[in-house]
Amino acid sequence: MVLSKDRLRRYLNVKREYSEDKYINVNPIQRGGVLSKEARLALLEWGDGYSICDFCPPQTPRLDKITRPPIRDFYQDLAEFLGMDEARVVTRCREAKLIVFMTLAKPGDYVILDSLAHYTSYLAAEAAGLKVKEVPNSGYPEFKVDVEGYASKIEEVLKETGRPPALALITHVDYMYGNFADASRVAKICHDYGVPVVLNAAYTAGVSPVNGRALGVDVVVSSGHKSWASCAPTGILALTQEMAKEVLRPSSIEGDLTKRRFAVKELALLGCTVMGAPLMTLMASFPHVVERIERWSEEVEKARFVVEQLERIKGVKQLGVKPKMHTLIHLETPCFYEVSKRHKRRGFFLYEELRERGIVGIQPGLTKHFKFNVYGLSWSQVKHLVWSFHDIAEKYGLEVA
Amino acid sequence: MVLSKDRLRRYLNVKREYSEDKYINVNPIQRGGVLSKEARLALLEWGDGYSICDFCPPQTPRLDKITRPPIRDFYQDLAEFLGMDEARVVTRCREAKLIVFMTLAKPGDYVILDSLAHYTSYLAAEAAGLKVKEVPNSGYPEFKVDVEGYASKIEEVLKETGRPPALALITHVDYMYGNFADASRVAKICHDYGVPVVLNAAYTAGVSPVNGRALGVDVVVSSGHKSWASCAPTGILALTQEMAKEVLRPSSIEGDLTKRRFAVKELALLGCTVMGAPLMTLMASFPHVVERIERWSEEVEKARFVVEQLERIKGVKQLGVKPKMHTLIHLETPCFYEVSKRHKRRGFFLYEELRERGIVGIQPGLTKHFKFNVYGLSWSQVKHLVWSFHDIAEKYGLEVA
Repeated sequence: MVLSKDRLRRYLNVKREYSEDKYINVNPIQRGGVLSKEARLALLEWGDGYSICDFCPPQTPRLDKITRPPIRDFYQDLAEFLGMDEARVVTRCREAKLIVFMTLAKPGDYVILDSLAHYTSYLAAEAAGLKVKEVPNSGYPEFKVDVEGYASKIEEVLKETGRPPALALITHVDYMYGNFADASRVAKICHDYGVPVVLNAAYTAGVSPVNGRALGVDVVVSSGHKSWASCAPTGILALTQEMAKEVLRPSSIEGDLTKRRFAVKELALLGCTVMGAPLMTLMASFPHVVERIERWSEEVEKARFVVEQLERIKGVKQLGVKPKMHTLIHLETPCFYEVSKRHKRRGFFLYEELRERGIVGIQPGLTKHFKFNVYGLSWSQVKHLVWSFHDIAEKYGLEVA
Repeated sequence: MVLSKDRLRRYLNVKREYSEDKYINVNPIQRGGVLSKEARLALLEWGDGYSICDFCPPQTPRLDKITRPPIRDFYQDLAEFLGMDEARVVTRCREAKLIVFMTLAKPGDYVILDSLAHYTSYLAAEAAGLKVKEVPNSGYPEFKVDVEGYASKIEEVLKETGRPPALALITHVDYMYGNFADASRVAKICHDYGVPVVLNAAYTAGVSPVNGRALGVDVVVSSGHKSWASCAPTGILALTQEMAKEVLRPSSIEGDLTKRRFAVKELALLGCTVMGAPLMTLMASFPHVVERIERWSEEVEKARFVVEQLERIKGVKQLGVKPKMHTLIHLETPCFYEVSKRHKRRGFFLYEELRERGIVGIQPGLTKHFKFNVYGLSWSQVKHLVWSFHDIAEKYGLEVA
């Protein structure tokens, strides 16, 4: 047995090096997933495996039917909060997309994506056997998705296959530039062709106000660990009543011999989904989330302040649409690249200089351009971030206006 | 907005009523998922959303490539522990089955299941578009799966379709009677027809020694929150090298416009799976799990003791194969049913009498027959459980030999 005690010791007491109490972590995917203190309590209370199954109703054994803890209420409130009719918590935003693609499309069908879609939108399409067509963006430096392009892509599919695509997906805010897309315009265009629209709100719902009904979309998917102050893995799937009928269709398989059937179970969810602690963190953080989205404009203000201040370093330029409408920031920084060429640590110098100043989360090695997220930082942390960049710039002789 | 502060208060500080420190919880699905104390520490340390992504390698951004925390090592050790070549942690055992069914079979194909298979095995088959054929069991009172029946079911499929089924699944220990199936015999039979075998080890791996190589199976799936002292949702997928080639096939989709590709990502896993705290609980509990499976025989001894003692109550009879080889126990108890007919609380009397004695986890309302699990109980807890049943029996005038 190679699994000696010595070997196994590596799994004990593994500490997180970049925890919130030690560093300002501006990792682009992490800011919205920092737990609320209520969620931390929930973790300890509900950590054990199937802890939430103590009061599963025997007649309808299903996660969304549990009332102790109040999961049934939560699902209703979650739908209400997102302006949709039905909501389910699934294991990841990507799983929500797969579920939607598997249930609302057939293998060989097309789904239209924006060209800034997350890789998981492509993978979910591929896993469901779908083909994709991408709606272009404006390219450097704004990379703005041309939402009018949804019409021409739908026309392309019509010409090629004789019928409209099964679905369209629009990324509400993209992972690369933090651009906001005009989802309601996309919904309008696609609905003119009878194409249902999936809103990928992984970077918006949970941190900013998102109302699917007001936007006119048919499905909203989001990520609890990205934007709802929850543990991974938690995804959110919210649906109009019409879509719910298809997407949440019950199982109809029957055992050939036993004749067992499982009609109470939602097929594409495989029955129950997130049965433990992560769901409870999502619930415990929900009051905090409902409250924090009202403060979104201040978060955007911080982002704009950071951009304004960092652009004082000569050569620094924000990519994506200006002014910022989201806290995910992508900067082009040729000035830091020039420094890296003469620095003995090469591209790693910037990462290391930032870390010395208590800041982590920018990809090690990058200096030409990089992204980060200031969501949920206090103003004093924001100012420290700005000071750190200025201090590093000055240390290496860059001009700070 | 109906989401008033008052309404939202219900999600704050929700306590688990049946926690380990208050009750002996013998819920059949919960005993193997009680966290180790090391896992409890990991929860707090790694609770934040994407906490484990701080050191994701930029060139191969994938969960199984992360070395800080030691996820890469863990995946290797997990495979080794299960006697397989490759292992991945996925979101649930049911997702592991779906992944295997989607990648190793095509819609319309058959999968052979044992007739005691968990509902999620059927749902995974249905979601993947597969048809099922069930291998019979011996029925009352043993419900022993006739493993030789795999041959005749395969023959049936051959006759019907001209080719063997895509897959066979055998439930190592079933959820209903806790019977052990002879997986190595199933593997032998199925391999004679060239049919790969999936072992559903949700109730065995993590609590008892399971070696996929020794059993001759091609895939092992298991459940972290059921049997590995982990948070939900965590599933385990372990594969031979040959299966891994298919099941872990990378993505090949390409954007029509951007030409973006994602060849580093494992398609059926949708890239990364369990990115946070639940994975860390699985890792933190792993040394404990490696150690505890060596004590399996003592756990079985406790189960046999309980059966022997409860069968002293006249009319109580253990269902499933005797003697017990697993800690999940199903009892037939017509004597308690007789009591319920004259009790003002009807079927709920037994549940309530047990709860008064500090025992929960038996389905409320059941008295004719019910199941529970004694895994991981101390001998003094086991004895208290026995005493409680005897005490209740005597209270209601039942004969205890």
